[in-house]
Amino acid sequence: MAGEKLHCKVTLCLMGDKRAFGPGVAALLEGVRRCGSLQGAARSMAMSYSKAWSIMRNAEDIWGFPLTRRYVGGKDGGRSVLTPQAEIILRRYEKMTEDLHALADRQFQQWFNEEELQKLQKLEDR
Amino acid sequence: MAGEKLHCKVTLCLMGDKRAFGPGVAALLEGVRRCGSLQGAARSMAMSYSKAWSIMRNAEDIWGFPLTRRYVGGKDGGRSVLTPQAEIILRRYEKMTEDLHALADRQFQQWFNEEELQKLQKLEDR
Repeated sequence: MAGEKLHCKVTLCLMGDKRAFGPGVAALLEGVRRCGSLQGAARSMAMSYSKAWSIMRNAEDIWGFPLTRRYVGGKDGGRSVLTPQAEIILRRYEKMTEDLHALADRQFQQWFNEEELQKLQKLEDR
Repeated sequence: MAGEKLHCKVTLCLMGDKRAFGPGVAALLEGVRRCGSLQGAARSMAMSYSKAWSIMRNAEDIWGFPLTRRYVGGKDGGRSVLTPQAEIILRRYEKMTEDLHALADRQFQQWFNEEELQKLQKLEDR
């Protein structure tokens, strides 16, 4: 096996008719938290604002409530924050993702470690 | 929340430089087992043969061994089968996927059941 070492990747999506929550929405929400705006979040992910907006909009349609709220005027004017619901969903999504990765890594290390990969290689030579 | 009931979906990929094994390769291998050819497998998934071939080829490049073998001549002439390595990888991949789904479903039921979703809805109304 040449090049990058084999590893595993787990993706979790919460789905209604369409995707309600997945890595994209999670990254955008983390970006809003960090940058204070969806525009800033999109830019930091090299994503167009229209794509970011449409991902968020789809997600909000499925949940049935907003995931971010924009403050107009005052000292926080123009700043976007996560709604309490978005904070809860994001926290649970991240915990689920963390547990899934831990399980996948454990099984991966058992079944696809160097020794196992060499055994698979040798099977071919028989 | 309108439309289809919220549920969760987990995707597992084994990655080298590129994707070595994921839902696509797994479905194609199951198709080869069922149909006896990659052509038949691709057709049953409404996938072009060239796309199926390229997915399999990428995967084999990363593993460093073939995943299917084609018998030429004899009573099994023209029939493709999974290599012993592909059988092992597919079995382990399916077991990992099954365990990940079980874990995700358990956490999903705890955090995104009807009652929890209603609680999230109500948060907004405050």
